[in-house]
Amino acid sequence: MAFGWIDEQADLRRRAGLVRTLRPRAADAPLLDLASNDYLGLARHPEVTEGAARAARTWGGGATGSRLVTGTTELHAELERELAGFCGFEAALVFSSGYAANLAAVTALAPHGSLIVSDAGNHASLIDGCRLARATTRVTAHADPDAVRKALDAHDGPAVAVSDTVFSVDGDAAPLAALAEACREHGAGLVLDDAHGLGVLGDGGRGGPHAAGIAGADDVVVTVTLSKSLGSQGGAVLGPARVIEHLVNAARTFIFDTGLAPAAAGAALAALRLLRREPGRAARAGEVARELHTRLTAAGLGAVRPDAAVVSVRAPSPEQAVRWAADCRAAGLSVGCFRPPSVPDGISRLRLTARADLSGAEIERAVRVIGETRP
Amino acid sequence: MAFGWIDEQADLRRRAGLVRTLRPRAADAPLLDLASNDYLGLARHPEVTEGAARAARTWGGGATGSRLVTGTTELHAELERELAGFCGFEAALVFSSGYAANLAAVTALAPHGSLIVSDAGNHASLIDGCRLARATTRVTAHADPDAVRKALDAHDGPAVAVSDTVFSVDGDAAPLAALAEACREHGAGLVLDDAHGLGVLGDGGRGGPHAAGIAGADDVVVTVTLSKSLGSQGGAVLGPARVIEHLVNAARTFIFDTGLAPAAAGAALAALRLLRREPGRAARAGEVARELHTRLTAAGLGAVRPDAAVVSVRAPSPEQAVRWAADCRAAGLSVGCFRPPSVPDGISRLRLTARADLSGAEIERAVRVIGETRP
Repeated sequence: MAFGWIDEQADLRRRAGLVRTLRPRAADAPLLDLASNDYLGLARHPEVTEGAARAARTWGGGATGSRLVTGTTELHAELERELAGFCGFEAALVFSSGYAANLAAVTALAPHGSLIVSDAGNHASLIDGCRLARATTRVTAHADPDAVRKALDAHDGPAVAVSDTVFSVDGDAAPLAALAEACREHGAGLVLDDAHGLGVLGDGGRGGPHAAGIAGADDVVVTVTLSKSLGSQGGAVLGPARVIEHLVNAARTFIFDTGLAPAAAGAALAALRLLRREPGRAARAGEVARELHTRLTAAGLGAVRPDAAVVSVRAPSPEQAVRWAADCRAAGLSVGCFRPPSVPDGISRLRLTARADLSGAEIERAVRVIGETRP
Repeated sequence: MAFGWIDEQADLRRRAGLVRTLRPRAADAPLLDLASNDYLGLARHPEVTEGAARAARTWGGGATGSRLVTGTTELHAELERELAGFCGFEAALVFSSGYAANLAAVTALAPHGSLIVSDAGNHASLIDGCRLARATTRVTAHADPDAVRKALDAHDGPAVAVSDTVFSVDGDAAPLAALAEACREHGAGLVLDDAHGLGVLGDGGRGGPHAAGIAGADDVVVTVTLSKSLGSQGGAVLGPARVIEHLVNAARTFIFDTGLAPAAAGAALAALRLLRREPGRAARAGEVARELHTRLTAAGLGAVRPDAAVVSVRAPSPEQAVRWAADCRAAGLSVGCFRPPSVPDGISRLRLTARADLSGAEIERAVRVIGETRP
């Protein structure tokens, strides 16, 4: 029977304790949220939701076509200008998701015969970009500029190194300045995914590359999401105008996808303007993360020191991670639970995200619940 | 220099007349639109835009996380239930784009060692799904069930055939019943992209598979977009509950992407309910397309007979197609212009889309402008 093999795989998952189930949440769920990527607490900010509502009314429920046909509105152009300016790049191109932006950047910047040097801890969307590209991919040890240098040494012709700026699972940062240096020595491009850096790192949240002093360089291309710190949906590629023009002409996930919905563009633009006006939100997210880490460590839990707003706490097994997260939830706390295949090293974790708008009392409560429910 | 090869490619594009440029549109552009995929004219319907606005206010500007962490709201679950019910399937899973839905369906349903049989005219997102999958892909002649049968004959083990239901470029329909029969003979699955069928084909717009009597079969999986007839953004996979459960556990573009923005889910749900209440909109889109075709043909233009709402008119060359579309635009008419690499056969076209809400006078005006500006 067609799809018969699916049942065998389902059975294996059940036995390994790796079944995933969707759990629809209510609009007024009383849980304390340390699971979302809403780092600045802007997703439900009235300026952001009004930005979405106004854009839908002005421009419609959807973009109505691909960006090259009818799917580019003046709102998209405005968002692209302001986003590029904020992060310190010449130009930007908005996509329907960060996933699509990463597929576009990697595939369009790694032509046939070229080399991609990819960090072992990179996000699934970068990995899929490498798989889709017509280039050869070399995976290097995690956060290791020397390994990148060696891989580039062994290749002649166009090359890019590809890395997250902040790794999603453990919340650790990539050595951006050293990576840029290694690439520059070899005339290679650097493609960075700043999904977890934008809004948290850099002056007023301008992101990891801005903090490292490499934003706007002619050999650096950065992708961001609009769905984390900016509380919306979508992604963008930032870079030199000639690179953006190339993507418009060559990136399949740009050319063949419907444009981002106006409401999402409007929400992201409102969040960006709010962040510009209230730059302290960015630093606050980092402070909350460091405070969470300090308190969890003091309570004897194996938390990884955060470089941005993600705090990762290791669990003994997938089953225990699931139970731990469920116990937190029963005690009113929502935390992320990452298990294989979502963790590159196979180690299951609770994944906590620091929100800029968490109060001291909420941080205290979160740490208490996590400690009390530990396996 | 990094990315130096980009300038050479840009030069080649310029010389071949294949440069693409973004043209941001104003909210009140006075153009008559025959370019968007807003087949039912719902993108700016007040119920749809209010659906978006209300959802943003209730749920926030974004879904705040991946669907398995915080990104599934009760609104997503509601949309999935109603969409599955409307199209005649057991279950549905919503994605941030149709592109992501196609990558998910193809990669997750074609495991290592399996065979994908892919129509030569398939959309880029299905092709990218084939490239990403761990399976072997055989490309078969366009809309040819016998070729599919032969490809399946030659393979032992799990297999799927993959096809658009309505091909985006020429607007012709796939032979769905014959494809389903060929697959069933071989115990193979059938994955269909109904992006251009939903809302236009089948009883009240229930889509191509519903019209062909294969909706809800245990060996048929269908993807749809929320960004065309439903006037929003996003995509969905429809199929047996066990297949949907498999995607939740295995599809990378589901697991590692932020959930669809509430505003997009709200807009799509409002459009779906409107279509249920006013089923005549679906048939009207087809009527408009056939009327366009009849009149264009009578005017001596090389239009392809439409099976849904897309009417394709061939142009002598990419340059002339671009000039033709620009002349239409100067005369107040917005039409699509498809050139390589967006056309599988290398033939450039004007691509017209019939909207259910076009008046007789608008159809007449469109045909007149296209005739008067022909190269």
